Amino acid sequence: MTLAPAHVAGVGMIRFGKYPAEVTLERMAVGAAREALGDAGAPLAAVDGLYVGHVFGGPVAGQRIAAQLGLDGSPVSNHENYCASGATAIREAWVALAAGLHDVILVIGVEKMTDRVSGGVRPDPGDLDAAVGYVMAAGHALSARRYMADHGATREQIAAVAVKNHAHSVHNPYAQYQKPISLDEVLGARPIAEPLGLLDCSPISDGAAAVVLCSPAGLRRLGIGGPVPRVLGVGLVSGSVLTGTGNLNAEDVSRRAGEEAWKLSGVAPDEIDLVEMHDCFTIAEIVRMEGLGLVPHGQGAAWTADGHTALGGRLPVNPSGGLLSRGHPVGATGAAQVVELTWQLRGVAGGRQVDGARTGLAYCKGGTVNGTDGGSVTTVVMAR
Amino acid sequence: MTLAPAHVAGVGMIRFGKYPAEVTLERMAVGAAREALGDAGAPLAAVDGLYVGHVFGGPVAGQRIAAQLGLDGSPVSNHENYCASGATAIREAWVALAAGLHDVILVIGVEKMTDRVSGGVRPDPGDLDAAVGYVMAAGHALSARRYMADHGATREQIAAVAVKNHAHSVHNPYAQYQKPISLDEVLGARPIAEPLGLLDCSPISDGAAAVVLCSPAGLRRLGIGGPVPRVLGVGLVSGSVLTGTGNLNAEDVSRRAGEEAWKLSGVAPDEIDLVEMHDCFTIAEIVRMEGLGLVPHGQGAAWTADGHTALGGRLPVNPSGGLLSRGHPVGATGAAQVVELTWQLRGVAGGRQVDGARTGLAYCKGGTVNGTDGGSVTTVVMAR
Repeated sequence: MTLAPAHVAGVGMIRFGKYPAEVTLERMAVGAAREALGDAGAPLAAVDGLYVGHVFGGPVAGQRIAAQLGLDGSPVSNHENYCASGATAIREAWVALAAGLHDVILVIGVEKMTDRVSGGVRPDPGDLDAAVGYVMAAGHALSARRYMADHGATREQIAAVAVKNHAHSVHNPYAQYQKPISLDEVLGARPIAEPLGLLDCSPISDGAAAVVLCSPAGLRRLGIGGPVPRVLGVGLVSGSVLTGTGNLNAEDVSRRAGEEAWKLSGVAPDEIDLVEMHDCFTIAEIVRMEGLGLVPHGQGAAWTADGHTALGGRLPVNPSGGLLSRGHPVGATGAAQVVELTWQLRGVAGGRQVDGARTGLAYCKGGTVNGTDGGSVTTVVMAR
Repeated sequence: MTLAPAHVAGVGMIRFGKYPAEVTLERMAVGAAREALGDAGAPLAAVDGLYVGHVFGGPVAGQRIAAQLGLDGSPVSNHENYCASGATAIREAWVALAAGLHDVILVIGVEKMTDRVSGGVRPDPGDLDAAVGYVMAAGHALSARRYMADHGATREQIAAVAVKNHAHSVHNPYAQYQKPISLDEVLGARPIAEPLGLLDCSPISDGAAAVVLCSPAGLRRLGIGGPVPRVLGVGLVSGSVLTGTGNLNAEDVSRRAGEEAWKLSGVAPDEIDLVEMHDCFTIAEIVRMEGLGLVPHGQGAAWTADGHTALGGRLPVNPSGGLLSRGHPVGATGAAQVVELTWQLRGVAGGRQVDGARTGLAYCKGGTVNGTDGGSVTTVVMAR
């Protein structure tokens, strides 16, 4: 079953990175929102509702943003699905447009992390997996070891994900990191959870991204005549290690998220031209692409090392730089992926443009689907 | 513009109150959910998605609940609008049913407060209103003083809200408090922010409430033939003192929330048979009822003292006991209001039944709409 698509009238973001305390969550969100509204040519009065995705912003963060933006009075809602929060806000907005509730919706994903997180994001006190040492980095390290053992993949092939994504974001002025890194740098970085080192891990980041989504009536309200990129559908599935086979790399949750994506969008997997993938760790990009069925099982590491997922390759993954190099302000990531896909589908992505991109998939994962607590995966399918 | 109604197939809640630490947020939510699923005759496999409203549960609380409930794998999303979080989850579910995304949705509102809040809920560190002493109780105390000055209302008339709501919940086995209180007890209670005392304030509570919402196809899936209570529409507006006239009791946000309610539901204000009102403080029930236009401006206090808003009166308000006496586990409140309206519309509310109730309104407010930060108001209109 498919719903009506959401039309992307405008997008905007601020450069991801580390901002001082006086650059508040609200200020970042307002900055991204103004970019998106300007891109859409949308006055504030044209906006029917504000959907905000964030994790650590505290109660009614969206309402604080609305007040500073000048949208006070509008319907405002806050959506949280950990690192999939921005994508979940996009999903709820897509549903609200399809239902006919609104015609012009502003979606903002935002997170201010650097003034509250030191080192990595700490697990919740009640997380029993974490209490026995199974923190996020450890889970992905186990995944990497298992992948290497099962498929004869090498450490170097896994590290190639970081090299590729950093090479991509050299061309992304909104990325936290904009310089290339070498394979030796990845291999020689400080160990975090072996075999993974610091450059296999996405950074702690601040940032905001915003998208103006419209129904056809909303496009007319904004005076937009020509075709614009569309969100065809947004899948959402949850899972934990208990819902799968127990094999960390079976990626049952990714398989089901992919099935949702193809069903909701009407797009077949072999029609996808590029992917914005939740590469919170290098190995995660590999196993998730395989779980989706977009890369042959067990070949993801070799594909990466062979350049098949790089710009110019068979299926470019993370032309933006991904979480590893664009940065990962958790609530903002899902919205930033849609911003990137929009630029790619418009053909305005400059040095990181995927030639002739007609369709794209954005994938987010929030929570610990490899633990027993559970998490969610979102899949956004877009077309120009 | 109206959307298709959501049909209430089943409801459930646990008694609100103070639970020990081992009664976790997840356990409370699962308890309420099982009640609602049992009431609907719905097996877990019939549920298409889980929408969870909470404020303090931490990231992916809904996914943790899903894993413990046996709904792991389903689409799960978390919705936060402070004290309107449960109602916001109801709203998003209503929209998803209207869009045709799902046919059977489980909505849970839940909060575990007593093991993390001592005294009252503390303001956020960045709340500049609170930093100068304008905390929530102070705002409502100012509202009460202004109301008394403007309308010649007495302290006793305002206190009558607490006496009435506690009298109602003597008949509510799910209420935190189930014994009557006297006017003298309210007047003699420990001062919190004069003229308001302890019994003018809603308590810190733990609790969970759940609702199974269906499309017509969903009702058929569950084998439900006869008519069931319906959610006709859910309004959502935001505001701050800056969006109104600057008069604390003008309740511009309530006026706009009411207009949304009538527009989305097609029900006229004079057709409402009972109200579940967000009486976080006694005075709040009075000014919000007036803001909605359901009680004549300036007469709410006298109406209360004269019994017009009591069971058997012209327009019963809070037959459940409201936040003051049923309790106020913040994320659960909006869902609990819909549970109460469902019981009332089914005619099964026992000693607190509103005779012949055909329609009802539930109102929640989240965040500080009387401050500069902003908050939201939800309005749920139901009919049998």
